[in-house]
Amino acid sequence: MSDSPILLTPGPLTTSARVRQAMLCDWGSRDPAFIELSAGVMDRLTRIAGGDGRHVCVPLQGSGTFAIEAMLATLVPRGARVLLLVNGAYGRRMADICRRIARDCEIYEVGETETHDPAEVTRRLEADSRLAFAAMVHCETTSGLLNPLAEIAAAVRAAGRHLLVDSMSGFGALPIDMAAHDLAAVAASSNKCLQGVPGLSFVVCRRDLLEAGRENAGSVVLDLAAQAQGLEADGQWRFTPPTHVVAALAAALDELDEEGGPPARLARYGENCRRLTRGMADLGFSTALDPGVQAPVIVSFVEPEARWFDFQTFYDALRARGFAIYAGKMRALGTFRIGVIGAIDPPVIEAFLEAADGVVTEMKQKLIR
Amino acid sequence: MSDSPILLTPGPLTTSARVRQAMLCDWGSRDPAFIELSAGVMDRLTRIAGGDGRHVCVPLQGSGTFAIEAMLATLVPRGARVLLLVNGAYGRRMADICRRIARDCEIYEVGETETHDPAEVTRRLEADSRLAFAAMVHCETTSGLLNPLAEIAAAVRAAGRHLLVDSMSGFGALPIDMAAHDLAAVAASSNKCLQGVPGLSFVVCRRDLLEAGRENAGSVVLDLAAQAQGLEADGQWRFTPPTHVVAALAAALDELDEEGGPPARLARYGENCRRLTRGMADLGFSTALDPGVQAPVIVSFVEPEARWFDFQTFYDALRARGFAIYAGKMRALGTFRIGVIGAIDPPVIEAFLEAADGVVTEMKQKLIR
Repeated sequence: MSDSPILLTPGPLTTSARVRQAMLCDWGSRDPAFIELSAGVMDRLTRIAGGDGRHVCVPLQGSGTFAIEAMLATLVPRGARVLLLVNGAYGRRMADICRRIARDCEIYEVGETETHDPAEVTRRLEADSRLAFAAMVHCETTSGLLNPLAEIAAAVRAAGRHLLVDSMSGFGALPIDMAAHDLAAVAASSNKCLQGVPGLSFVVCRRDLLEAGRENAGSVVLDLAAQAQGLEADGQWRFTPPTHVVAALAAALDELDEEGGPPARLARYGENCRRLTRGMADLGFSTALDPGVQAPVIVSFVEPEARWFDFQTFYDALRARGFAIYAGKMRALGTFRIGVIGAIDPPVIEAFLEAADGVVTEMKQKLIR
Repeated sequence: MSDSPILLTPGPLTTSARVRQAMLCDWGSRDPAFIELSAGVMDRLTRIAGGDGRHVCVPLQGSGTFAIEAMLATLVPRGARVLLLVNGAYGRRMADICRRIARDCEIYEVGETETHDPAEVTRRLEADSRLAFAAMVHCETTSGLLNPLAEIAAAVRAAGRHLLVDSMSGFGALPIDMAAHDLAAVAASSNKCLQGVPGLSFVVCRRDLLEAGRENAGSVVLDLAAQAQGLEADGQWRFTPPTHVVAALAAALDELDEEGGPPARLARYGENCRRLTRGMADLGFSTALDPGVQAPVIVSFVEPEARWFDFQTFYDALRARGFAIYAGKMRALGTFRIGVIGAIDPPVIEAFLEAADGVVTEMKQKLIR
């Protein structure tokens, strides 16, 4: 058995004991009790997305990337083009997916610390009528950057196109409103700001687009239209659902309600984030992003160039003290990442900072000796 | 919280408390502790498949059908043909997958209570040199039928073709030996005879075929070659793994070892199956299959034509007594199914039979009144 460190990672993350204990029951996947559990979870996810009767939440077995591929494969017809807004690894991943599933795309890429210009989005959409869709990442986990969803959504709506959103690492905390922003689809997963365990992803879709997407997917398992059709027929998933993961998510949604919903959760994460960046600054670590674009989800810190620092040593020493941090992923800059999401609060962040202080002191002393 | 009935289903099924308790820990998906856990599980699955240094187990997020689609998409090149041996819904599903992923196939279909003739397999393979692959279902869960793996494998090997096996509902109990039968790949999942929880599937593949399969898949997430490459590089899954499900499977594999491995597990399931069919016969229910082709995994019973019987009433009454059975899936015959796999032993079967006896009596009395 693992010693269960505190996970300061972007998900899987530290869950509550109650969420994990929800996995102590077995469920029959075609039994009415599970059908009810599953339907309740999907309704609640639709509401969190700001969806209404025009929207439906389609669950999918697997991690978040499964949902992203399924969303692109199901909703984008062959022959249509997608404008991809890229400023990190998850945007680039959508480009890889489009290439593999044979969907044409145009890439609008900016630097990993920058956001896209809505006017440029408008210009590109107006220049190419085949661009029926645009796709963006809400919070780019590569850096921790918050992309301007409302502004991009307004530009895409004004151009009369459909916007697909990867809200993987923000869903459940960052504000999102499908109906108000006229979003075509939002993809996310159980194990990030929703604070469930990994194994389940989902796409909240506009029903009409899902209906129009039948037979688009060059895949049986990633066909969201068929998945939705199966669920609407008798409430059963087409293929074995991860029953325990669904039960854990139901418990996690109860906790989200009790906390006060996404705004209260965002406030807690915001406080975690402020304490972390302040404390890390005291230890000499600077953030990779401007505070104005930093989402309170995961923070990229610049790796010190000083000789005392080495990421693996830093990781191992923190891990020995009970904390798991995360490697960096930015292209131009050596960084490491620390997540502020999950069942953790400011006292956990303070405990981490105390551990980090000890580790930094130790690493510097080792160099002197 | 569910009242956790005993699941007499083909998976998800009743797991042990120890397997479920293994999910009470959170794991960092890129932490060395999880990398070690995951690698240990894959090595053990390769050995259970009878694989050796030439084989590798590639895990995949999602249910068993995800692994089947990934196996076909990765290993079968575009332009090659697959001979599909069909005698139930899971064989037909492979045909649906081939159509969607644009792989050409020839279907050799026999009735749902029959097995395929190895001589006919030979004849068909010899007649069409484009048939580089054959694919079969080991235990057809539609009926519960055991297909003759050794005989089909011998025919495919003699013809110099590759055999892909869906061993979903038998892996961990039914004998399988990749090296001896020269199998190209075997796909299965965590939540059937291995007695783990659902959310993870895997394909044990020949390394050379996996290597040759790079870029075959028209999917990023279902590309087993890329998944294997990522795991070999640093032990990390490309995309978030279902960490708790992997931990549960590790505990389930410990239990399999302690029970005495697949032969001991098969013996227990065999005894469950004998007691069940005998007891159900005493209550007037006959099996759909000849005992000679019945796998001790799940049993299809013929629905009585008598006026007292109605499946939904039967299901609900058994469910109220703490047992969940399974609907039928055979085409020609009205059936229902009862699984004999999972963390259940003959006393559980006896308790079920007692409950079924009470339900049958009650249903017949209701008709009289």
